[in-house]
Amino acid sequence: MTDRKKRRPSNGKAGTLVIIGGHEDHDGDRVILKEVASLVPNGRLVLATIASHEPDGYLEKYQKSFGELGIKEVVELYVNDRLEAAHEKKISALANVSAVFFSGGDQLRITSQIGDTPIDERVHEIYEAGGIIAGTSAGASVMSDTMMVKGPNAASFRIGHIRMAPGLGLLPNVIIDQHFAERGRIGRLIGAVSQNPRVLGIGIDEDTAIVVNGEMFKVIGSGAVYLVDAAGVTHSNIAEGEPDAALSIHDLRVHVLSSGDAFDLAMRRPVGVP
Amino acid sequence: MTDRKKRRPSNGKAGTLVIIGGHEDHDGDRVILKEVASLVPNGRLVLATIASHEPDGYLEKYQKSFGELGIKEVVELYVNDRLEAAHEKKISALANVSAVFFSGGDQLRITSQIGDTPIDERVHEIYEAGGIIAGTSAGASVMSDTMMVKGPNAASFRIGHIRMAPGLGLLPNVIIDQHFAERGRIGRLIGAVSQNPRVLGIGIDEDTAIVVNGEMFKVIGSGAVYLVDAAGVTHSNIAEGEPDAALSIHDLRVHVLSSGDAFDLAMRRPVGVP
Repeated sequence: MTDRKKRRPSNGKAGTLVIIGGHEDHDGDRVILKEVASLVPNGRLVLATIASHEPDGYLEKYQKSFGELGIKEVVELYVNDRLEAAHEKKISALANVSAVFFSGGDQLRITSQIGDTPIDERVHEIYEAGGIIAGTSAGASVMSDTMMVKGPNAASFRIGHIRMAPGLGLLPNVIIDQHFAERGRIGRLIGAVSQNPRVLGIGIDEDTAIVVNGEMFKVIGSGAVYLVDAAGVTHSNIAEGEPDAALSIHDLRVHVLSSGDAFDLAMRRPVGVP
Repeated sequence: MTDRKKRRPSNGKAGTLVIIGGHEDHDGDRVILKEVASLVPNGRLVLATIASHEPDGYLEKYQKSFGELGIKEVVELYVNDRLEAAHEKKISALANVSAVFFSGGDQLRITSQIGDTPIDERVHEIYEAGGIIAGTSAGASVMSDTMMVKGPNAASFRIGHIRMAPGLGLLPNVIIDQHFAERGRIGRLIGAVSQNPRVLGIGIDEDTAIVVNGEMFKVIGSGAVYLVDAAGVTHSNIAEGEPDAALSIHDLRVHVLSSGDAFDLAMRRPVGVP
């Protein structure tokens, strides 16, 4: 729907992405929501609940949490179907806004409803103009060019048991998985990066987030972030194996980061270690 | 209780270890039990149900499965307490036997009941004389010098949330975890090897096993085996972090192996890739 020629490439990165592994704390020290709130420039934030089939209650929950953190205006953006994503009323919700927060649900609902619509275009504009785009759970997965849609949770990964789809493309050359430790997802993240080691795997635990500025990110929250780098892989059976075969892959490099750690996405290296 | 001077070191490895990640198939193609059966030299196998607090039903289950695979005699070895582990009647159950299979339960029950008893000594003798020692689940964990006892399942790994203990010491320089994908245990295995990169982490999915001969093992079964090698680690917070802190560790090397793959424990490398 949008004019692709007009869309600036995402690697013009000027804003901030806050990519959250789901279940960010709302009742305790709220480290992640505080960080988001600190990045919202004018006390206005759009809560995009598009990922959810039943978004009731999301707005109230985030209004309460963000309200207590100084965000006076939290406005919901929801679309019932793809045509609505081009309605002037929906698009105008994103006028004079520099912060969008994608809540959880089904990542495929986000991309299928708003992908390549004026809303999608406006989200990129906000980001490229220096705003903040945050997302939790499904809202985290959509950040990448190619996103994880389905794969085994807490089960042996099998070559054919993964489904990926085009994401919103805000952060190139990565694939993001969320609820990472909680749902036992290391196998499917390795399975994803094995398909093309160009993408770096980023697995984010619940109540944990990465805050991305340009090529750098820092880790905040209570859990860990797993980086899976397949650039040095010497063997895998991903192309030849049967769909039900277990994956075989050699020489992955893995980093586990926690709060206070930083990472250089261009160099694919942790940074700032004392 | 035993004379340590008499015990030959485990690195005299002459037998075979079959180390199973739990829930090996009993009803389908039974790849793992078939492999065990093929290694039992004289149709006699001792089923050590010591790990279980309630071993009822184990004997019948394994008698049926192994019976159908040609093992005529499956005898149970159980001890109610540590003193029983020195009874002549218990020890005699292991006379003229070249195959012992440790079933699942609590690995600490195995080591606390039979560690350093004549039964322990006899198990090592059988192995060093060329016999087969197999173990599933808790029976897999006890194989190493230092074994995993407790740690987070499907949750962010925290530095202080792990418990290890001395194992039976049949396979040195490794630490074994089981039900690996199914219980989301990558975090705790990384946490274990971070404490001393001398040990190689081996995470075994359910219905999956490694068959160890000397320094080599092959993978059988339907799932995957994860090798976590911390030898090249450049940073970790394991020694300095607070007990509730999430782990930070950089530059792990990880291999994922599946059926047909082989691995050289001395070189810490997959082998035989075409």
